Amino acid sequence: MTSEWRRFTAMELVEQLSGLHAELTILGPDALAGRHPGEHADNLACGVMAQPGSTEAAAALIRWCNDNAVAIVPQGGLSGLVGGNVSHAGEVILSSARLNRILAIHPEEMTVEVEAGVPLESLQQAAAAHGLTTGIDLGSRGTATIGGMVSTNAGGILAFRNGVMRHQVLGLEAVLPSGDVLSDMTRVVKVSAGPDLKHLFIGGEGAFGFVTRVVLKLEPQRPHRATALLGVTDATSALAVIRHFRTRSAVTLEAAEMMWPRYIRDCAALKGFDLSWLEDDAAALLIELSAETVEAATAALEHGLETLWEAVDLKGGLIAQSLDQAKKFWDMREDSGFYYAAIPSAPSFDISVPPTYLDAYVAGLHARLQAIDPTYDAYVYGHVADGNLHLTLIRPGPLPQTELLAVEDAVYAGIRDAGGSFSAEHGVGVEKRHGYETNVSPEKRALAHVIKQAVDPKGVFNPGKVPF
Amino acid sequence: MTSEWRRFTAMELVEQLSGLHAELTILGPDALAGRHPGEHADNLACGVMAQPGSTEAAAALIRWCNDNAVAIVPQGGLSGLVGGNVSHAGEVILSSARLNRILAIHPEEMTVEVEAGVPLESLQQAAAAHGLTTGIDLGSRGTATIGGMVSTNAGGILAFRNGVMRHQVLGLEAVLPSGDVLSDMTRVVKVSAGPDLKHLFIGGEGAFGFVTRVVLKLEPQRPHRATALLGVTDATSALAVIRHFRTRSAVTLEAAEMMWPRYIRDCAALKGFDLSWLEDDAAALLIELSAETVEAATAALEHGLETLWEAVDLKGGLIAQSLDQAKKFWDMREDSGFYYAAIPSAPSFDISVPPTYLDAYVAGLHARLQAIDPTYDAYVYGHVADGNLHLTLIRPGPLPQTELLAVEDAVYAGIRDAGGSFSAEHGVGVEKRHGYETNVSPEKRALAHVIKQAVDPKGVFNPGKVPF
Repeated sequence: MTSEWRRFTAMELVEQLSGLHAELTILGPDALAGRHPGEHADNLACGVMAQPGSTEAAAALIRWCNDNAVAIVPQGGLSGLVGGNVSHAGEVILSSARLNRILAIHPEEMTVEVEAGVPLESLQQAAAAHGLTTGIDLGSRGTATIGGMVSTNAGGILAFRNGVMRHQVLGLEAVLPSGDVLSDMTRVVKVSAGPDLKHLFIGGEGAFGFVTRVVLKLEPQRPHRATALLGVTDATSALAVIRHFRTRSAVTLEAAEMMWPRYIRDCAALKGFDLSWLEDDAAALLIELSAETVEAATAALEHGLETLWEAVDLKGGLIAQSLDQAKKFWDMREDSGFYYAAIPSAPSFDISVPPTYLDAYVAGLHARLQAIDPTYDAYVYGHVADGNLHLTLIRPGPLPQTELLAVEDAVYAGIRDAGGSFSAEHGVGVEKRHGYETNVSPEKRALAHVIKQAVDPKGVFNPGKVPF
Repeated sequence: MTSEWRRFTAMELVEQLSGLHAELTILGPDALAGRHPGEHADNLACGVMAQPGSTEAAAALIRWCNDNAVAIVPQGGLSGLVGGNVSHAGEVILSSARLNRILAIHPEEMTVEVEAGVPLESLQQAAAAHGLTTGIDLGSRGTATIGGMVSTNAGGILAFRNGVMRHQVLGLEAVLPSGDVLSDMTRVVKVSAGPDLKHLFIGGEGAFGFVTRVVLKLEPQRPHRATALLGVTDATSALAVIRHFRTRSAVTLEAAEMMWPRYIRDCAALKGFDLSWLEDDAAALLIELSAETVEAATAALEHGLETLWEAVDLKGGLIAQSLDQAKKFWDMREDSGFYYAAIPSAPSFDISVPPTYLDAYVAGLHARLQAIDPTYDAYVYGHVADGNLHLTLIRPGPLPQTELLAVEDAVYAGIRDAGGSFSAEHGVGVEKRHGYETNVSPEKRALAHVIKQAVDPKGVFNPGKVPF
């Protein structure tokens, strides 16, 4: 795949691109040499990065690349976990780094117009000045950009309540492979005005164009919170806790994050977090509620736990007594890379199944892994309310290819029949190609191909990635 | 457009299609002669209707039509208001009438798998047995089918809270123009598994294939309600009322429907509804709340109105004292065709703007209409919380073409710049073609064309409709 694109050296590209547009910054191999490549070592491998400061500058770059059959790799905050931003010699990175303006916040409408390169946390901070926040939140909020979250249809912590990025986007502007600009910056929820093509770019992983601007919904901040870490037997118990709090009208469930036993125990041991309150073999459920006051949230939490204690057979519980303690709970869940020190490059996965199927899935997964190798085990944790699990094989990687494929098949088994997804919120990138090819129907893959060919006939956008 | 498709007479088509598949019912001109054509007189004009009883039967029909370059017009409940189901001689109607099974309700997951021909109200009744209901509701619930609602990205009463059809669909199965079946019946909210092509069919108005099955979210029924009809000066006042109730955690806002002065007065006069409580020149706002009991809902409504009375300068109000009275309020809003007896074929529109722009829009609209003809006025009503207005010119139609275009331009003026949509929930069909061509950017229309050409190269699906 790489060679056919290698029409120019990096230095030739820098020279060719440098005069294209006044608002276009071009960085070459030297400028990129010292940069952290983000979550994949090869993200910056091509050695050429274009940073447009405007939609027009992006369009000029894209038009040049399309005319010259030079491949483009769109990049945001480089927090993607599946290699969707990997670049190769001869390609040009198209970075949203300079598209970093919050264009307009409409507090009464609870919407925001934002450029694609704005990090999620920056947007959350700007919205907070109006008592608002984003309807989507995730652990990598400090680096993940809005454009990247659009391109991967990011999910995160609040998806059980607010849906995923696709449900938060009202309007979108993107530059097409031709260099034409598709501007569809609606700020309303009701649009039935012909095919809604913005959804091609949401979850499109950079295959169809470069997202430059987005209109997002916002929602009221709910700062008055209570947080608990509970011992639960299984996902079924966790779902009973979730159902209890979701049906109480005086509180809002803000998070329900579950950490299966081995994850919570190894993580707590590493961080020196006391788990003596948690009964043996129990998993941990992080619950966060909001209400009109902190006291009301705490009272609802305490009252709910009294009701639930025997009904759900809770295995211990800890209510955060301070923001600092709540942050310690969250750190265990969000610092989910803790294990990579011991198991570098361990294969990891991100799947979703209907929540009621979680326990059967996890039990089956362990059995399938052990059928491959009796010593295999996995860290399991994730967004239990929407059925999204993250899984990491407790074994340093990379595995030999045949063994990796066997593990992948073990992870994906039964998911499609259960109505789930082999990739829930991380995307496909280059690393989940096997999953895509074995879990997405031939008809759907063929249709994706046909549309890719129509929209990007030269295939300049993110070649080698989905739809392959 | 018609003639190029007229390869076969209706009777020839009936003969050709009749043996195609055991689960395919074919109705000819005689069988269709007595049928009500639904909301457009020409819906059944082609005289041939295929009713598949399974996805396979639909695929057989579609494959035959594609092979023989015979145009297909997908039809559901025929409640569409923009002529998206109009058929012509030589075409074949592909009806979802026999795809009318509710396949599975998953109460714990709050999802349902349903065939495309199920009417919304039938689904609501089946879900009610589990204490659940659909997250979307609209006046034509008795006839509108799930497949039709998908194809037009229907909105309705609850969109301000739950989004539109696009936000309610988790999974979808459709037959492509090739006859291949795209089956993507996921039941989870988090999917980032390559391009999410189901969104081509949602709001696609039958241009890309035939929707056969859908997975929808459900939500808990909230039967304990209180309903009021309030006098308000303008949309700004209505939005203040809405904001009040939306920020109260003990109640849920179930509806906020506004009827501008001329609509409510003419409708009430026709129905013999006493409006003596409503101050002159005031508009009416229908508000419905739910809570844990009817008493709690009523108390919250009464308390809220006390608070709001002076702050918002309400112009009168009536709290429904019975379900029967609440139904009378709703009848005025939902029987919005009352005016067609006096103004048959009056031009009507369905637009959305950001809610804070509603008053400026309505004022501008009246000025623009009167600039065309000083006697022009419009009925204005709709879903005020999401900025979706329905507009009907108070003048029998059809207007002469040049005058109609002038009225359309007056209706659409400023909407795009304001971030709204010239068509909010009815779609484009054949009747909003001018709106599509003048309000959707050339780049977006061109992209829609390119994708249509790629997916349906012979153009057999719903020719003459959007994307044109």
